[in-house]
Amino acid sequence: MRVGIFQPDARPGTPQERFARLDAALESRQGLDLMICPELFLSGFADPERIAQEAEPADGPSSRAAAAIALKHDVALVYGYPEAADGRLYNSALYVSRTGGNRVNHRKRALPTPYEESLFTVGSEATMFTLDDGLKAGLLICYEAEFPEAVRACAVAGAELVIVPTALGVEWPVVSRRVIPARAFESGVFLAYANHAGREGTMDYIGDSVIVSPLGEDLARAGSGEAVIAADIDPSILPAIRKRLPFLRDYKSLA
Amino acid sequence: MRVGIFQPDARPGTPQERFARLDAALESRQGLDLMICPELFLSGFADPERIAQEAEPADGPSSRAAAAIALKHDVALVYGYPEAADGRLYNSALYVSRTGGNRVNHRKRALPTPYEESLFTVGSEATMFTLDDGLKAGLLICYEAEFPEAVRACAVAGAELVIVPTALGVEWPVVSRRVIPARAFESGVFLAYANHAGREGTMDYIGDSVIVSPLGEDLARAGSGEAVIAADIDPSILPAIRKRLPFLRDYKSLA
Repeated sequence: MRVGIFQPDARPGTPQERFARLDAALESRQGLDLMICPELFLSGFADPERIAQEAEPADGPSSRAAAAIALKHDVALVYGYPEAADGRLYNSALYVSRTGGNRVNHRKRALPTPYEESLFTVGSEATMFTLDDGLKAGLLICYEAEFPEAVRACAVAGAELVIVPTALGVEWPVVSRRVIPARAFESGVFLAYANHAGREGTMDYIGDSVIVSPLGEDLARAGSGEAVIAADIDPSILPAIRKRLPFLRDYKSLA
Repeated sequence: MRVGIFQPDARPGTPQERFARLDAALESRQGLDLMICPELFLSGFADPERIAQEAEPADGPSSRAAAAIALKHDVALVYGYPEAADGRLYNSALYVSRTGGNRVNHRKRALPTPYEESLFTVGSEATMFTLDDGLKAGLLICYEAEFPEAVRACAVAGAELVIVPTALGVEWPVVSRRVIPARAFESGVFLAYANHAGREGTMDYIGDSVIVSPLGEDLARAGSGEAVIAADIDPSILPAIRKRLPFLRDYKSLA
């Protein structure tokens, strides 16, 4: 299957404007089976007022707009958004199947900064789901994937692809260039890490979105500006790699 | 404290010849507090007959020769060697304090290939010790450090520096350039990864020995040939880094 990442420029915009840009990106890059957008794609990451203003339930109007785009382009989607639920705010990401009919929501559990702790309620463990073509996926957000245990848990639960919307600043190349590829290598999974590009308020994004093979090698990597990247993912290669590098068989004995 | 790595060319030699080359390396690079040599430094990694021939107990003649070098140069040492014990063979590494008086032995537990499984008995968990100047160290060998759980366990047990003699081939740049720096970052430790250089039989070593900061950044990195590299390590920076990136506080909740 063919997996894409939309790395949007971080200039402000309404959810409608952002979906329009996603729609254009999908128009420009046909044949994708899955398109992944960054953390808090619909609101941006750096403006608390906008985050609060754009918050909506997991089955709110944006999820229906996303389903319409999925259906139009015959592509599954993952995107981050601020979720309003029970009077609380979560940093969430939604999977929408290519028919628009199946939706899976993940709420970020690991909130890495006082900024996020002040805005969001702590979410749930990694979210697992199966794509229409049978691929098993795990969904984490940003900082969660910096913990090897979180990606390990996805792989042990059967994930072949781990999907990570993120909002990574320019000061953290170590994460996009070293830590994220290591995650794929050490747990024998494909991994797609989708970031913003450009500047939003005082936040400078590094871009550098990447799709990594289970050997920790780049299949596709974006630069620092707005971009669409894509790579073919073939989960049938996983058993041989996991036999050669049996991290999932042996990790408990090293703990 | 100042930590060095001796990345020797892998040409064959007796333990005496190899210690003579280490002695020369220490002569050329004075002021080190700790010098680290690769996995199976005394025998090489690729020749099973030589490995069997050079095997000796942890308190054998090589350990005394190492203690004499440590004393002469006022430097602590870590080096890999084939250990003979109870009629068995272990892939081991020995720490010798700068006075030569304190020695700590680690036996490699994770044997990654049929080649190693056919030669060696499975060893023990990560070995912890305290250097003369108070620095707390964990000792792992090669493939063990590819498991995030192994370095995590060292850090949780108090390690400030994780020492990893290795024997890494040219086909694995992902390990030395991505996985090893990620290990240091995700567990908030300094990490020293000491490899061979050049060719030994059919084995082509990548060199690429590296000393990594707890932010996952290179402090010193060797090329592909014989080299000595060194870096200053200041464990007093660890608390602030671990407060900013509280992986050791939070990792259990992400598992």
